[in-house]
Amino acid sequence: MRFVTYASAGGPQLGRLDGQAVTPIPGLSLTELIGLGPVGLARAAHASEAALPLGDLRLLAPIGEPRRNILCLGMNYAEHAAESLRAKGQPVVMPKVPVIFTKATTAVTGPYDDLHLDYGLTTEYDWEVELGFVIGKRGKNIPRAEALDYVFGFTVINDVSARDVQTAHGGQFFRGKSFDETCPMGPWVVTADEIADPHALTLRCMVNGVVKQESTTADFIFDIPAMIEWLSKGMTLLPGDVISTGTPSGVGFARTPAEFLKPGDVVVCEVEGVGKIENRIVSA
Amino acid sequence: MRFVTYASAGGPQLGRLDGQAVTPIPGLSLTELIGLGPVGLARAAHASEAALPLGDLRLLAPIGEPRRNILCLGMNYAEHAAESLRAKGQPVVMPKVPVIFTKATTAVTGPYDDLHLDYGLTTEYDWEVELGFVIGKRGKNIPRAEALDYVFGFTVINDVSARDVQTAHGGQFFRGKSFDETCPMGPWVVTADEIADPHALTLRCMVNGVVKQESTTADFIFDIPAMIEWLSKGMTLLPGDVISTGTPSGVGFARTPAEFLKPGDVVVCEVEGVGKIENRIVSA
Repeated sequence: MRFVTYASAGGPQLGRLDGQAVTPIPGLSLTELIGLGPVGLARAAHASEAALPLGDLRLLAPIGEPRRNILCLGMNYAEHAAESLRAKGQPVVMPKVPVIFTKATTAVTGPYDDLHLDYGLTTEYDWEVELGFVIGKRGKNIPRAEALDYVFGFTVINDVSARDVQTAHGGQFFRGKSFDETCPMGPWVVTADEIADPHALTLRCMVNGVVKQESTTADFIFDIPAMIEWLSKGMTLLPGDVISTGTPSGVGFARTPAEFLKPGDVVVCEVEGVGKIENRIVSA
Repeated sequence: MRFVTYASAGGPQLGRLDGQAVTPIPGLSLTELIGLGPVGLARAAHASEAALPLGDLRLLAPIGEPRRNILCLGMNYAEHAAESLRAKGQPVVMPKVPVIFTKATTAVTGPYDDLHLDYGLTTEYDWEVELGFVIGKRGKNIPRAEALDYVFGFTVINDVSARDVQTAHGGQFFRGKSFDETCPMGPWVVTADEIADPHALTLRCMVNGVVKQESTTADFIFDIPAMIEWLSKGMTLLPGDVISTGTPSGVGFARTPAEFLKPGDVVVCEVEGVGKIENRIVSA
């Protein structure tokens, strides 16, 4: 199943996407639906309101107000870890434990929205295409063998990052990852049953039509079961938690010369089989 | 006004504390009440249900399910910054921008609850008494002069930290700060009008009756207006956001030899004029 959230007169509205038709699912956000477990999925499957054409709707982030910060992996593709370490003049050694940080909920914005970025704060806004996934049920100390049972579905995230800010706060990434409108997400959440192998997905980022990142989730350093195992060790995961799995090589700051997003740029982030988001940069 | 949340048959229940009497405020969590602005405060002031004796209630965290991660300041007392840097063999230079990280919502627990800590994950659980404050209204790019208008109230937080985990994940503090039950909070939220000067509060941490930390918020490197100014630059703050303002010197890892919390230890964290929380450590 595919879930969208769209703008309606009554506020954000959840819907089920079938082809180009969206059937409203009344009275629930996607986070709330996930929290209901199989009952929520049954409600979605049986929704029978009049369908609307996808093309007539303004899509919002499928999970527009996450129940807590987005959980993010850093340096989770070998080539990206190498380019980042080289750019900082550090030895190229692969992380043995995942780099984990968070992104503020208020950074989340729609899959096709303009990103109003404040160029008075920084000029170093960088792109990061990522596969996102959503936790389907509560769990703690989840063993690797059961981890994929906890995945509700997948989405596409651009983890837009303010590079100088990311390193300025005693090295803690949070603030440089959390400016408003730096987490476009969508266009939908695809349930896990529709993705045959989440570790064999091509992902790509294009800026003004030029491919900047192109890789495959086969190159994860920590795969999805490993991420869930690490994150849930000692910390309860909740239904609706959004996890962004890290970005491959080709980011702007590691290029020679470094490149950053400018007002007017159009950024497309795509994960094969999941979806494609497209956002224009606007100076706030 | 003072707000408590307590365990009731119907789940967590918000109440107004007057002396030793708690008047239930039906139908709202504290986060929801804050979101209503002056209307919420009026509802609290006019609550007229039968009052209950404080001593009969089991207090929960006043904000038990924050709407997103706790925002935390690191190295925000000069003496603590110095002890931390010395313990790591680094030069003692005061931070010029605040160190900002987050703590998972699932770490939050009650003011007098036992902390069930998993000693299989780490043995380096450390104490950190902190003044917490709660944001009262939505805001972004808040100027210093207006910052205190955004403070709804204050509470006490013990930012229990797993020291080795805190540095193991590429230096990102999040995971080492986010194990379940490592954020006892309370016993209540005191509204800002009751605290004459939040920058002149004595705070203290005692382990098994021995004073380990004792300092004053006068020693903040970044004061509360500076924290709000920094956090809201480019990032919208939300009513109900909880901000933990950093801990003074005297933490365990910086002692010679290093000391950590053991099962059976009782930790008291106290901020003068705000309150006192007390938690016993239990091996999970």
